[in-house]
Amino acid sequence: MHRPDNDLVDLVFDYMRERLQYDPVPLDHPGDGEHLRAQLAGLLNQDGNNPADVLKLYDHELSRAVISADSPRYLSFIPCAPTKAALLFDMVVSCASLQGISWLEAAGAIAAENQVLRLIADRAGLPQTAGGCFVSGGSAGNLSALVVARDTARRKLAEDGRPSGPEARLRIAVADQVHSSVKNTFNIIGVEAFKVPTVNRRFTGEALRAALAADPNPETVIAVVGTAGTTNEGIVDDLAGLAEVARERDLWFHVDGAYGGAGLFAPSVRERYNGIEHADSFVVDPHKWLFAPFDCAALIYRNPQLARAVHTQDASYLDVLHTEGDEWNPTDYAYHLTRRARGLPLWFSLAVHGVQAYTDAIETGLRLARDTAQLIRDTEHLELLFDPQLSAVCFKRTGWTNDDYYRWSQQLLADQIGFVTPTGWDGETVARFAFLHPGTTMEMVREILDTMA
Amino acid sequence: MHRPDNDLVDLVFDYMRERLQYDPVPLDHPGDGEHLRAQLAGLLNQDGNNPADVLKLYDHELSRAVISADSPRYLSFIPCAPTKAALLFDMVVSCASLQGISWLEAAGAIAAENQVLRLIADRAGLPQTAGGCFVSGGSAGNLSALVVARDTARRKLAEDGRPSGPEARLRIAVADQVHSSVKNTFNIIGVEAFKVPTVNRRFTGEALRAALAADPNPETVIAVVGTAGTTNEGIVDDLAGLAEVARERDLWFHVDGAYGGAGLFAPSVRERYNGIEHADSFVVDPHKWLFAPFDCAALIYRNPQLARAVHTQDASYLDVLHTEGDEWNPTDYAYHLTRRARGLPLWFSLAVHGVQAYTDAIETGLRLARDTAQLIRDTEHLELLFDPQLSAVCFKRTGWTNDDYYRWSQQLLADQIGFVTPTGWDGETVARFAFLHPGTTMEMVREILDTMA
Repeated sequence: MHRPDNDLVDLVFDYMRERLQYDPVPLDHPGDGEHLRAQLAGLLNQDGNNPADVLKLYDHELSRAVISADSPRYLSFIPCAPTKAALLFDMVVSCASLQGISWLEAAGAIAAENQVLRLIADRAGLPQTAGGCFVSGGSAGNLSALVVARDTARRKLAEDGRPSGPEARLRIAVADQVHSSVKNTFNIIGVEAFKVPTVNRRFTGEALRAALAADPNPETVIAVVGTAGTTNEGIVDDLAGLAEVARERDLWFHVDGAYGGAGLFAPSVRERYNGIEHADSFVVDPHKWLFAPFDCAALIYRNPQLARAVHTQDASYLDVLHTEGDEWNPTDYAYHLTRRARGLPLWFSLAVHGVQAYTDAIETGLRLARDTAQLIRDTEHLELLFDPQLSAVCFKRTGWTNDDYYRWSQQLLADQIGFVTPTGWDGETVARFAFLHPGTTMEMVREILDTMA
Repeated sequence: MHRPDNDLVDLVFDYMRERLQYDPVPLDHPGDGEHLRAQLAGLLNQDGNNPADVLKLYDHELSRAVISADSPRYLSFIPCAPTKAALLFDMVVSCASLQGISWLEAAGAIAAENQVLRLIADRAGLPQTAGGCFVSGGSAGNLSALVVARDTARRKLAEDGRPSGPEARLRIAVADQVHSSVKNTFNIIGVEAFKVPTVNRRFTGEALRAALAADPNPETVIAVVGTAGTTNEGIVDDLAGLAEVARERDLWFHVDGAYGGAGLFAPSVRERYNGIEHADSFVVDPHKWLFAPFDCAALIYRNPQLARAVHTQDASYLDVLHTEGDEWNPTDYAYHLTRRARGLPLWFSLAVHGVQAYTDAIETGLRLARDTAQLIRDTEHLELLFDPQLSAVCFKRTGWTNDDYYRWSQQLLADQIGFVTPTGWDGETVARFAFLHPGTTMEMVREILDTMA
C-alpha cells in the first residue's frame, strides 16, 4: 500500500485533471440516503476492490451527491471558492503528508505559513510581535483565543487576590448577532455571555459602555468579542468603539473575522475595520473569502506568549520540541497538537498571484453585492432588507410565506440555477445571497431573481 | 485565479508525480530560520511571481527543511505513513474543494465517511446505533467527547435536583499516564482531574475502584478516560475493568485510542482492547496507524444523540440544515462547523486495499517492535525498559547521560539514518522507537542501534 503505484497515480491524476477543467463547476445535487447506502454496500471488505471501480463509484455516485461549494452559483451559507493555485498546492500538502506541528519537524512549512500570518497581521495593523497559527476553522480559532482570554483574566484576578478559580463568575461581552461558534465556545469553556443589544444589528462601543454601566457586576466581564462581518448580514461591528471600551476596562478584545476579515484587503471597505489594530486576538478563515480550500483559519494574537502559556502541551516525548531560540511551534498557539500545514495553499496562491489579485477578487464580490442590492431596489416585488456592508444580501419577495422560500430554494437547486437557502430575519423567513466567487455574474443573479417573479 | 490553467496543473502534477515516486521518502532536515526568511523575503508582493519559481523555492528550500513523517526512518513521536491510495484521494478531496458539513450539501461524502466509522465501530464492538464524525485530531476528538460527557452529567445532576451549574465541582478520572491533550481539555472545559495511580503504567479498574472508595466526594467524579495505547509506551489500559467501574457508578467511559486504536484491526493484540465495547465515546486517529494523511481523527459515540444535543450550532442561516429524516450532519457531533471531508482518503484506501491489507500492515509494526525488543535484550550495552505492548519501544544505552541521547539523536538525523528523538522515563532521558511505517525494516533498526555501540 505504501509503494509507488503508477497505475493508481495515472488513474487519480486523470480524474483530477478532468475535475480541474470544469468551468464553471456544476452545482450538483443533494443525495438520497437509501440509494447511497445501496451503492456502498459491501465495499469495505477483506480483500479490496479494483481502484478504477471505486473511483468510478465516487465519480458517478458520491461526488454527484455533493453540492459544490466552489460553483459560482453556490450563494448559500458562505461558499468556498479556492483559487486553482491554492487547491493544487493543497494537493501538494497531501502528497508530501506534510505535518505542521513543530519547528523541529517542519521549519520550511511553518516559515511560509508565518509569512502569510504576517501579511494578514500587517493588514490588520497588528504589531510586529503578533503571531499565531493556522487552525481548522473559525470554531477552533474562537475557542483557542477565548481560552487564552479567560486564562489571562484568571491570572490577573489571582494576582489581584480576587477569586480566580472555577467559582469565579466570568463573562464575555457579545452582541445578540454573534456567531453560533462563539456561543458554543462559551458553553465549552464555562463563561457566561454578557449580551449587549445591537444598534441596527451592529455592536457598538457606546452600547457596550452603557450596558457595563448599567450592570451591577461589570468587573466580572473579562473580554469582548467583536464580529468583523456577521455571517448572516455581513455587518462589521464598531471595532474602534469596542476597542476603546476594552482599553478603558482592561478587557481582552477578540475579533471574529472568520467570514469578513478578508475585507481588510479591499480598499472600498477597509475603513469599516478601523479599530481592529487594537485586537488581542483575531480570526479570519482563508477557506472563506481568501480563496483557500477547506479547512483553514488564521488565528493571530497580539501577544503570542500569552497563548503559548495556555496551549503548550507537556508530555515527555514532546520535551524535545520545547527548546530555546527562534523555533515557532504552531501547536503551542491553539487547541491542537497534530496539524496539517493548512496555511501553505494560501501561501502558494498569494505568492503566485500577488496581493493585488486578491484585492480585485474580493472587490468583485463586494461589487456583486452592491449591484444586486440595486437590482433588488429596482424590482417592485422584491424588498432589500439593508444596504449590504460586505458581500451578503438579505431580501424579501413580497407576499411569500416561509414555505414559498423553501420550495423556491429547492426548485432553484433542482434546476441547477443556483443554491440559495433561506435565512431568518426578525423571525421571518427571507432570502439571502452570499457572494464570494469572482466567477459569479450579474447574469446569474438576474436569472435567479427572475424565478421570483 | 479561478479559471482552469493547464500550465499550472502540469507544473504541479509533474512535481507531485515525482514526489510520489520517492521510495523510500528521504528524512530531510531541520531548517534554519534566518536562511528560510531570507529565501522568502519579498515573495508576497502586490504582483505575484512566476509559479515555476515559487514551486522551485518550495521544492529546493522549504520542503527540504521538513522532516518527512512518511519516511520509514521516521521513528519519533508517532509517524504518519499514509498509503499512496489515501494520499492520492486526499488530493481528490482538495481538488473538489469538498466540504463535509451537512447531509444537505455533502451526502455522498458523508455516506462514505460513515461507512468507515461503522467499520471502526464494529471492530470496537459498539452497537449499531453508534456514530460520530471525523475531526482534525485527537485533541479535537477528546475535547468534543468530554464536553458531551460533562454536559450529560450536568443534565443528570439537574434532574436529580443537585447543583449542576459552574459551581458544581466535576471531576474526571484519569491515570497519571493520560495524554497531554486530555489534561489540556480539562483546563478548557473546567473539570478537575481525579488522578489515579497506575499499576505498571497501566490504568486498572481495581485502582480506580480503590481510589473512588478512598475519596470523600466520589459523587463528583462523572467520567473516566481510558487510553488504548499510551503515546509514550503503547500501553493499553484495563478497559474491561474501567468499564465495569464506570457501569457501577454511572460514569461516562471515554477511550482515547488516538494512537493505539488501530490495534483493534490486529488479531495478535485484539484481546488487549476487551472492554472497549462499553465505551460511551471513542477516538482513533487514522492519520496515525490507519495510514491516512494529516489530519484525521475518528470520533464515535455510543449514543450520538447526546452529542447532537450538545454540539448542534444554532443560527438562522443554518436552520435549513436541521430537518427531520435520515440526514447526518457531521457538524452536529463535534466542536466544529466547517469541516474538510477528511474521512474520505481512508475510505478510498480501505475500499481499494481491503481490510486484510490494513491488518497485515499493522501487524508488521507490531512485529518490528517485538523483534526490536528482542534485539535490545540481546545487546549488552542496551536495556529494554518494558515488553512492548503495541509498537512503541523504550530503551536505554548503559552509561549515557541526557546530553548523550540528544547528541546521538541529532547525529542520526544529520546522517539521515533515522529520526529518533529521546523521551522521558521516570525522570530519566531514554531512547524510544515508534514503529508504524510497514516499510521500516530490521536492517534500518540494526543500523540505528549500531550507532549506540
